This record gives sequence, structure tokens and C-alpha cells, in this order.
Amino acid sequence: MAASKDVAHANKNTHRETGITLPAQAGQEKTTAELVETWGADAIRDSDGTELSSELLDLGLTVYSTLCLVRVDQDYARKHPDQLPQKYLMSEPVAAASETVVIDLMRRFYREKYVIDTRHDAYTYWEVIDRTTGDVMPTTAWRFDTAAGTVTLTGTTPFHVYTVNFLVFQIWDTTSMYNHLTNNWTGPHILCVDPYHKACWDHLMRVYDRYLANHPCTDVVRLTTLAYHFAVDSDQDAVDTFRDWTGYQDTVSIPALEDFTRDYGYRLRSEDFVDQGYYNAACRVPSKGYLDWMQFIHNFVVRFGKALVDKAHRRGKKTAIFWGDHWVGVEPYQPGFLDMGIDIHVGAAEDGVALRRVSDAPGNLTRELRLYPYFFPDVFSENGDPLTESIGNWVKIRRALLRQPVDRLGYGGYPSLAAKFPKFVEHVAELCAEFRSFRENSGGGISLKAPIKVAVLNCWGKWKPWINSFAAPQKFLVKRPDVIQVAGTNLLECLAGLPVEIDFLSFAEIEENGIPADTDVIVNDGDAETAWSGGQWWIVPEVVAEIRRFVHDGGGFIGCRGPSAYQHQGRYFQLADIMGVDKEVGHTIQSASVPGDMRQSHFITADLNDSPDFGTDETFVYCCNRTTQLLAVNGLHVLAAAKSYGKGRSVFFSGLPYNLDNARLLHRAIFWAANQETELTKWFCTNPKTDCAYYPKTRKWVVVNHSAQPQTTQVYKGAGQAIKISLAAYASAWRTDEQ
Amino acid sequence: MAASKDVAHANKNTHRETGITLPAQAGQEKTTAELVETWGADAIRDSDGTELSSELLDLGLTVYSTLCLVRVDQDYARKHPDQLPQKYLMSEPVAAASETVVIDLMRRFYREKYVIDTRHDAYTYWEVIDRTTGDVMPTTAWRFDTAAGTVTLTGTTPFHVYTVNFLVFQIWDTTSMYNHLTNNWTGPHILCVDPYHKACWDHLMRVYDRYLANHPCTDVVRLTTLAYHFAVDSDQDAVDTFRDWTGYQDTVSIPALEDFTRDYGYRLRSEDFVDQGYYNAACRVPSKGYLDWMQFIHNFVVRFGKALVDKAHRRGKKTAIFWGDHWVGVEPYQPGFLDMGIDIHVGAAEDGVALRRVSDAPGNLTRELRLYPYFFPDVFSENGDPLTESIGNWVKIRRALLRQPVDRLGYGGYPSLAAKFPKFVEHVAELCAEFRSFRENSGGGISLKAPIKVAVLNCWGKWKPWINSFAAPQKFLVKRPDVIQVAGTNLLECLAGLPVEIDFLSFAEIEENGIPADTDVIVNDGDAETAWSGGQWWIVPEVVAEIRRFVHDGGGFIGCRGPSAYQHQGRYFQLADIMGVDKEVGHTIQSASVPGDMRQSHFITADLNDSPDFGTDETFVYCCNRTTQLLAVNGLHVLAAAKSYGKGRSVFFSGLPYNLDNARLLHRAIFWAANQETELTKWFCTNPKTDCAYYPKTRKWVVVNHSAQPQTTQVYKGAGQAIKISLAAYASAWRTDEQ
Repeated sequence: MAASKDVAHANKNTHRETGITLPAQAGQEKTTAELVETWGADAIRDSDGTELSSELLDLGLTVYSTLCLVRVDQDYARKHPDQLPQKYLMSEPVAAASETVVIDLMRRFYREKYVIDTRHDAYTYWEVIDRTTGDVMPTTAWRFDTAAGTVTLTGTTPFHVYTVNFLVFQIWDTTSMYNHLTNNWTGPHILCVDPYHKACWDHLMRVYDRYLANHPCTDVVRLTTLAYHFAVDSDQDAVDTFRDWTGYQDTVSIPALEDFTRDYGYRLRSEDFVDQGYYNAACRVPSKGYLDWMQFIHNFVVRFGKALVDKAHRRGKKTAIFWGDHWVGVEPYQPGFLDMGIDIHVGAAEDGVALRRVSDAPGNLTRELRLYPYFFPDVFSENGDPLTESIGNWVKIRRALLRQPVDRLGYGGYPSLAAKFPKFVEHVAELCAEFRSFRENSGGGISLKAPIKVAVLNCWGKWKPWINSFAAPQKFLVKRPDVIQVAGTNLLECLAGLPVEIDFLSFAEIEENGIPADTDVIVNDGDAETAWSGGQWWIVPEVVAEIRRFVHDGGGFIGCRGPSAYQHQGRYFQLADIMGVDKEVGHTIQSASVPGDMRQSHFITADLNDSPDFGTDETFVYCCNRTTQLLAVNGLHVLAAAKSYGKGRSVFFSGLPYNLDNARLLHRAIFWAANQETELTKWFCTNPKTDCAYYPKTRKWVVVNHSAQPQTTQVYKGAGQAIKISLAAYASAWRTDEQ
Repeated sequence: MAASKDVAHANKNTHRETGITLPAQAGQEKTTAELVETWGADAIRDSDGTELSSELLDLGLTVYSTLCLVRVDQDYARKHPDQLPQKYLMSEPVAAASETVVIDLMRRFYREKYVIDTRHDAYTYWEVIDRTTGDVMPTTAWRFDTAAGTVTLTGTTPFHVYTVNFLVFQIWDTTSMYNHLTNNWTGPHILCVDPYHKACWDHLMRVYDRYLANHPCTDVVRLTTLAYHFAVDSDQDAVDTFRDWTGYQDTVSIPALEDFTRDYGYRLRSEDFVDQGYYNAACRVPSKGYLDWMQFIHNFVVRFGKALVDKAHRRGKKTAIFWGDHWVGVEPYQPGFLDMGIDIHVGAAEDGVALRRVSDAPGNLTRELRLYPYFFPDVFSENGDPLTESIGNWVKIRRALLRQPVDRLGYGGYPSLAAKFPKFVEHVAELCAEFRSFRENSGGGISLKAPIKVAVLNCWGKWKPWINSFAAPQKFLVKRPDVIQVAGTNLLECLAGLPVEIDFLSFAEIEENGIPADTDVIVNDGDAETAWSGGQWWIVPEVVAEIRRFVHDGGGFIGCRGPSAYQHQGRYFQLADIMGVDKEVGHTIQSASVPGDMRQSHFITADLNDSPDFGTDETFVYCCNRTTQLLAVNGLHVLAAAKSYGKGRSVFFSGLPYNLDNARLLHRAIFWAANQETELTKWFCTNPKTDCAYYPKTRKWVVVNHSAQPQTTQVYKGAGQAIKISLAAYASAWRTDEQ
């Protein structure tokens, strides 16, 4: 083994610069080797369901080995049911028909996924709540029948509605269950364990030590991920009922709850987790208790991750972290992330937002994208179309790549499946070559940005940067369960490809420190009353006054969907005075909207050819100021508007589903809101279907065609001179500064 | 005069039964007489702008004389500016840029309509409010400059928003202003006075005594109406900004405010009237203060009206009251109304709701509809189409007339204008003849109703029965300012023609006495959080539990648009458990809707041929219970649903704009919700474009065609036997029970 390892290391030098990681598969050595050659890979990895043979390990490539430690030892998990992950669930609301009610706790949950926790004292950790009044019932008013799995309440008020917040253990890992149901996996149900338990931690460290010892050829331990799975709940028929890809719902354990009480000086209630049945979803304005819990768990996950990284480093191996299923608590934008010492930061990417999630995270880690589609039977089958999916993703990723680069690309799954789609193989070869041309021509540098800094404002700030703010249309979208599709507004995807500096800001940061002095434009995009819009933060006087001051003094404010929405003191949009529009939510039905300043042409809409798509035509947003510049309306419904306020400016969009026209609208809106219209035509394409970027480090620039048709555009260079360029469908072309 | 009066009285006997009141016009005696003959009138009246000549008075008809006492003496009004009606206005919100702010009170109001009250102490009656915090500023922090009409605030917090609640006098009557602007009236601006002032009351009584003495030929004093105009506010350019046809905004005076304090034991604040700038519009959930004020003013209006009625009666004259412009405080559904002793109850009617407003009011008054169009140049001109307007109105009125009769019809305006439209004259002759055939064949009796009592539940109950609950689409409707058009839901118009008992119920009544024992079905129709839906009443435990008990025990609940909507304890629709649907308003975006029980056929939708119109396709209402019967959906958006709950049933509609299909949906929904499906086919037409009614008093029945096309229908008679009947467009046909 030692000999082959040395050979491998020798060969690795020749492949160092290709920047592509491929999944490899024992038994498919020839196919794997061909793909390595065709795509130009310098690293291979195993995946869920594949292993690396010694022949593959001898190819001379960097070897990534995938490890999800919390599910690696099923035997241990089965023998230690007290160390399985826990969570709080809320029983189905039941109306009392009399003064006694029996509640079947598990009635609406999947019994193969959860078992009720009978190990810990229900009367200490659970709560029974009268949801008609919001009152917590005294523990003397209810009795938990462990055998029946029921809670019997006495002294109920007839026709009030009652729920029980109760603890469960998770007896089926969410990803394993998903693969069984979606990809027809069979075999035993995988269980995870919670390393917060000291015994579990110690056991996992021993397992990990053995793993490191048994993987001498592994160059990079690819941690996928660390301790806690994101939340997916399943109803009695195993149908998904709740998803929160960024949520801490599944991080509960009794030791953690008790340690939190010790560390923070107060005890979290079951209701802090259950949250009226909303479970602190990302769309909910977070409570202090939930934010404290996130910080507490994040601190633990960092400790856990650092222990793993340190052990790998001591073995001379690097570590990669994959933002995968068990990524909750990792938080790459929190300062603790870098404390772990991880070397390579890998993220799955289907669009520009996902790229920016990886590319923009702090630290000097190597950045790698895991592209879709995963080589899995769900897509790589007779009915699948991996080529179309890949092109659609890549065009969005490449658009964002113009603004912020990554170092590597990678794939996952079964290479044997990919090899059956020759057009896909050919397309990926071109994609990899194009990626390398970007790396080479840019010299690894970052493209020139306009002197405008945009801050995306919501309740989450640096807890959830580059996370899409799902809006109400998302719930009504009938979609493939395994693909992330955004319905309605998708301002963030529009933003991901724009040549401006971008930061994420929370209301709490504004309350504490005011708006950072280098901010030029604030963007607030989200459904009314969600964490993305801000909810009750919009009636915190210090916050709203600070934002008003910022705009008055020359700042820009761009609101989308439900910006500054919270019913208070005669307004729904608390910044209605700044935006010049407000929303009808039942209080002003008998008040007329104000005639605005209808603009047939405007700086913001100058590049529009077709009618733009704002997601809906019935916005119920009305003009409330005569100086409001109406950019797009449907009768009296305002779709887009702009307004001056003091020295500053605001722009309102009723929604920005991602498309190139809307991206251009946002592009121009940012420059307008920042009072920087004259900066627009520096490194700028007139045709919204195209884009360009200039790399000061190499003095080269690139122009790309995002569309499936040939396009011609004027490219304004840095000094303002324009060049006409034509590009084939999806093409990109590099020029030097002098061209 | 005495002689002609006797002749007139003699002749009147021969005309007694025709039931038609016509406007007459001095100088147009021949035209008037012809219309009297053609249309079969037994009464004439003067109108705004017309007078009766002695020749007209001698026609032998009952004479109505129109009087609006509060605007009859313009000289007095001009000499007593302290007795003009007052109201509270809120100044335009202004953000403080520093610690001093100057607010121009009248900046956004029409200066020809309002003058600031400088007679009463601003520091006693006004309030300056920080709308960012909701705090009232101390009176020491502001100074009112009477000359400049400004308020200067000091010690303001930068970038908080401030408003002033201030009092004005109204120097132009709203109707006079409307006629100037819409009908191009010229001449002096009419002023009204407020009879709450003792001196004004005394003066008006003297004027009234003289009026009665000077009108010996008047049989009926037609009061149009009493003391207070409904609210219409106008911006700086005289454009309407606020309308509340049922609102008490314009009933303020200092003596009334002070008497209220004495009678109710607490003082109303300016903010009780300004209401954050929402001015207690009918769509707002009313506060206790506002409801107390309504009762207080209503009591006064009853005293005022009774004084006028008593004086007329002492002169041997009857009185009619017209629900006209100054009708605020009259409140025909409040018990005080009958204390006035009015003889004839006249209401303008454009549809079935307006008919029911008159026909259903308690008391033994003669009921008369004033039909549209009013004979005015706005419609009776080259571009006008009075015929189409009249047919459209009459079909809706006739539909409701099948359920609840009135005694008389009438018109208003200039007969000379009507006479220029011969087809209109002919149509009205037919309309009057048809009305008389209804009176005759029904014997003045009421048609048979199903044994189902519907209670329409909202915050207003008997304060606003048969008042349309305008919803948000209303605000976005671009409409003729002088015509009432309902956009979006119009469940009440659907209901107006259904063969069931109908009552109106407030949440306060439920809280006090529970749901009346004879209620079969509760209807809750209105935009979320408005007074029509109920707003915060839906989280009053006693109310919501009582409604839940009612349905559980066998009652029906029909919810439309935003039924039971108020965010609380995990639900938006508080009766989501009963309706089986809830609405996405930002908290459950990441929770999946529940698969419901999709019904291709259902009792409720059995008569539908086309896709029904629920006002919108994007409802954001989702199924939350597996037993919910989905009647109409758009993807995952629920448009209509039904569900059992205990022994009772519920139905949800996302909106019911009035049309015959939707009326039929509601018809069937009521019978289904009441568990009375078998009662449906008794006096029932299978064709939704037709209707029938049976009159037990005369044992006759009628079948009508509401549509512009010939229709054929099966008519199910009382015992269930069906007869096929064909009708010409808009036709009605009478049969005896045996036929």
C-alpha cells in the first residue's frame, strides 16, 4: 500500500491544476478512467453506495473519502437508543368536546421514523397547551400513558383546542428514508446518533481513529457533514409535511437542553422548539431563545468538527466539508466555522445562489462546487434528462461565477450511470474545459465590481446568507421533491450575478450598531411578516428610524414582495413613506389610492423589451404618494415603483422571479437606488441576455451569452467605449484589455 | 287651495293601488301627466332641482315633498359657522429630519371643503402622535399656529413619523360638492348645519314649522334624510380619498363630545375618531369607543327625527324617510328607529342587497324602493344608457323581491329627461306592470321559505345588515364614482335571492348570549381581519368555542374570502379545523398542504356547467385536513371546499362574486351545510338562470327567467313533483297551486 501511495503522490503533480473531482466506482475502473481523462479530473471520491478499488486508488489522483460519522456505526446506534437524535413534535390539535380529551400523540406522524421518548420525564420536558387561549395546562391536568402513546387531559374547556409538545427519538435517518422512498433503496433503515452524548462522542472518535488508520490512500477526508441532519418531517403515510434545510429542529437532546440552561442562565421550553407548530422554520421571525439555541449548537458542532479535523491533520490528511444533509450547525458564515480548520469547502450547486453560498464564505479554504445532477437512477434513467438539467444549472452558476470564483468542480454518484449518456459526457467535458478557461484567464482573481455595496437585510443576516427566501407561491408549487425550485420571487438569484459587493445584514445588527457605513443600498426581499421581510422588527423604532435616516442621507432601499411589512399605526409597509406604496390588507379598502407619476420610460426599465414577470398581477399594492414613479402597473395594482426620499432613493418590486430581464431590472435598480447611474456603463452589456466581467489581475475580460439563441451585444468597457460582439448560444469569449 | 286639495283626495282613492311614485317637474306638466298615466303612478314628488306647480298638485295624486332640513337655510348656515358639522382629520404623516418639525395640517385636504377649527382649544381636543412608537406627544411639545394652519413640534426623535389629529368645520356639503364636480352644477356651495347645537335645533324647528305651514298640499314629508352626511373626504385637488357610506366620521361637535363624556362616563380621544388614519371605516373592526359614539349619535338622530315626525303628524301629514346622503345615525335595524314613528321607508335600490335593506327592516312601515337610474344628465344624455342600467338593476331586484316584498317603487330626478328616452319609458311601464302583478298575485304576502335560518356573522350585526362587505379588490376597481359596483366577493347579493330566513349577528351578541337557538347556518364573509370577517374577535375564546360547539352539535358554517382569519397559536383561519383549509400568510411556507378528498361531483356543485368564478385563482388557501372535500382547486390553491365536523358541516369559498352560478352554489351550500339536502327540491328550479317562489296566502307561484336568453327549467313544486316550463328572456309567469 505504501508503494502505490508514493506513486500516486508522484502522479498527482501532473494533475494538480485541473480542478475537477469525480466520483469513482469499484468494478467500473475503465469507465472511471475514461471519464477522468475526458473531463480532466485530478481527484476522485467515493459516494453513497460506491467504493474505491485499489486500481482506482492507483490512478495517481487525489483521493477524497466520504465520511458521515454519525451514521457510520449502525450497530452502535441500535444498541444505544438513548443516543439517537431527538426532536420536539406537536400533536395534532384536538378540540375538546367535553371536559376530558385523549390525544393520540403520534396520530399524524410516521411511526417508522419517530418513537415517543419514554426515557425522560414527560412532565419536565413536555407541555400541553390550550391553543384557543395560548395557556399552558398545569401538569396536574394531564397524564401520559406510555403504553398507549396518549395524553389524557382533564378539566378541559369544551371546544377549546389542545396540543401536546412531546419529545421523540428519530429511528430512521431522514436521508436514508428519502432514498428508500424516492430511489427505491431497500435494506435496513439507517439510524444516526447524536454525538452530544459523551459516550457517543467517545465512541465516534474511536471509530474515526480506526477509519483514518484504515484509509492510508485517502488524501482528503470529505466530511458529509458533521452532527445534525436538517429537518424533514413525515406524516403517517411517510409523506413530507415539513422541510427546513437550515433548521435546528433535529438537534435536541436532554444533555444539550440541560447544558444550555447552565450556560445561558435560562431554560428553553418545549414551545421554544414547537413554536405553535411552525417549528422555527426559516420563514419564521426567530425568537431570542431559538437564536441562542442555534449559537449553542453551532458552538458544539464546531468543537466536534475541530476534533475531527485535528485528527485528520495529525495523520497528514486534509479535510473537506460538504454542505450536505447533516450540515446543521456548521454555519460557514459564522466566525466559529474557521476555528475548525477545514481545508476544502464543498457545496452542492444548482444555481448562482448556491455558488455564492460557497464562493462568498469567509476564510481561505479551497472552494469546490458539487454540481447537479448527481449520477443517480432518479435522473440517469430512460425518462431522465441530465443534459438539460446540467445546462440550466450551469448557465446560472456561470453567471454568478463571473462575480465570485470557486476553485474546483465536482460530481457525485455512479460514474457508470453517467457514462450511459454520451451527450452528457461530452457536455461535461466542455463545461470542465470552460471552467478551466475561467480559472486560467482570470488568474484566480476576482472580477471588477462597481463601487456599490448592497446589504441584504432580513432577520437572519450571517446565519443564512445566500439562502433563498421561499415565499408563499413555494407552498403551492407542485414540484419534484428532490429538486430545489423556487417559485415566485427569486431576487437573490438575480443578485448573484450582478457586479456589486454584496453583504447580508440582520435587524439585530442594525439595532446594535446601525447600518454599516460602507452600505450603499439595502435590499429587503421576502413575504410579509416572514423572517425574510422582518416581521415585528419593522416596528422597532430604532431600526426603522435608522433605515429612514440612511435613505434620507442618500442611501438606497430596494423592497421586494413584502418589504417593511407589519401592521402598525396606520401603515402596513412601515417604509411606505420611503417607497411611496403600501399594501391593502383590509384597513384601507374605502380609501382611494393616490395618483402617482406614471413613467413610460425610466432608467430602471430602459432595457426591457417584453412585459416583465413580477410573479403576480394582483399585488394589492397601491400608490400612496404623488411623487411615486410608477414603473409597472396592472390597473391600480402597482408592480414596480421608484421614489426619491431626501437625498436617497427607493425601488419597489412586487416580486422578482429569476429571469434575465428581471436580473437586468435589479441591476439597474441598484445603480439607480445608489445614485450611481453613470457607473452602469462600465463593463456592461446592453443586451440583458449577455454579461461581461473584467479581471484586473490578468487585464482580461470575458463576455458570455446566457441564452439558448445567438446574441449580439454592445459591451461597454471600463472607460465607457462600446464594442459590438456576437456570441453563439451559451458561448463565452475572452478578450484582453486592449481588444 | 283647500278646494283643490279636496279634489285631490277624492281622486287619490282611484289611484291608491298602483304603488308608483314619480318625480314631477313644474313646467313639464304634460310630460309628467303622460308618465303618470303610462307608468301608473299614484304619487308624485319633487326632487333636488325640481318643484311642483299647482297644476301638478291638482292631478289628484299623493304628494311627497322632499326636505333636507339641515341644508335648507343657507343664510343661517353662513351666519353661524360655529354650527357647521365638524370632523377629525389626520395630517399627512411627516418624518422628523431633526428635533423640530413643522406640519402643515391642511396639506393633503381640500381647502374649499374644510377649515381648521380655531374656535375650540386645540390642546384639549387635538392630539399629536408619534406614529413610529404610537405615543401621544405631550401638549407642551407642540404649538398650533392658527394663522399659518401649522403645528410645530419640538423634541422630536429624528426619523420618527408624526401626525396631528385636528378638528375642522365642513364648509361645503359633500353632496353639493359632488354635484358641482360630477354634474357640473354651479352656484353657491351648499353648507349644512349640525342640529346638535341647541340654537341650531331651535332654528331648524322654526324653519320646519314654516315649511309645514307653507305646504298644505303635501301629503308626505319626505325627509332626505335627517342630520348627518356620510363621510367622503377630498384631497387637495378635490379628488375623493375616503368613502364610508355608513360611517359616523362627520357627526362630531364639541357639545356632542362633552355630552358623551357626561353620559358614558369617559371621554373620547381624537384618536378614537382618527383611528390611525383609517377613520373607523366599515371595514375596520370597531372599537368600543366608536360603537358607543354610534349609539350616542343614533339616540340623538332618533330624537331629532321624532320631533320632525311628530310635527308632521300633528299637521295630518305622513312622513317618509329616504336612506339618502344624510342618513347616518338613522339605523333602521336598531330598535330606536321605530321610536321616530316614520310612516314610509324609502331606499334607493340598484340590486337585491339594497332591496333587502329596505324590505327586511323591522316595523310596519310602508316600504318603497327608489330605483336607478335617477333622471339626471349623467345617465340621461347622448352617451348614457339608462335602459341597460335599469334592466340590470331590475333583474337583481326582482330576484330578491321573490323572497321579501316591498310595497312601492319610485323614481327621482327630471321627468323631462326620462321622456326623451322612449324605450326607457316603455321598459319602465312594463317594469311597473310586472311589479303590480307581483303585488296582486302574492296578495302582499311573503313567499314560502325553506326551514333554514341563516345568520350572517360579522362585527356589525344589526348596525349594518344588508351592507356589502367591500373587499380588497374594491380598492383596485376603476369605476364610475357615482355607481356602486362591488368587486370580488359579493356573497350578500347571492344570498339576497335565496329562499331561506336571513338574520345578521355580531360577535358581541355571541359573546353575550351565545348563538341564537334558531340559527341553522352561520355565514362569515369578508376580507381577513376586517370587521366583515371579524379580526381579533376570532381569538376571543368564548366566541370561537361557541361557534365550534354550534357546528359540532349540527350547525352549518359557510366561510368566504377570509373567514375566521386572525393569526394566533398556529393558525390563520381560527376555524381551520372546521373548514379543513387554512391560509398561507408566511408562517407555513415550508409545511406541505395535506392531500384532501377531491370531489369531481358533489351536492353543492351539482348544477354547475361552466368553471365558476371565485374572484381569483391564487387564493393561497391550502387543504389542512384529509377529510376536506375539495370542490374546486387551482393546483394546490383551494377555491371551494366542504367538510363535516361533528354533526355539523362547513363550506369554504375563496370568493363569491355575484352571478347566477355562484348564487346557486351558495343556495346548495346552505342546504348542504344545514344537513337539509332533501328540502332543496321543494319550490326549486333546476336551471340556475331561473327561480321560483310560492305564496301560501294566495296559493299562487311564480317562475322567472333572470337571463337575457330564453330558458327552460324543471320547477319542483312543494310536494316534489316537477314541471317543465319555458320562459322568454327576463320573463316571469304566474301559476296557481294546481297548475
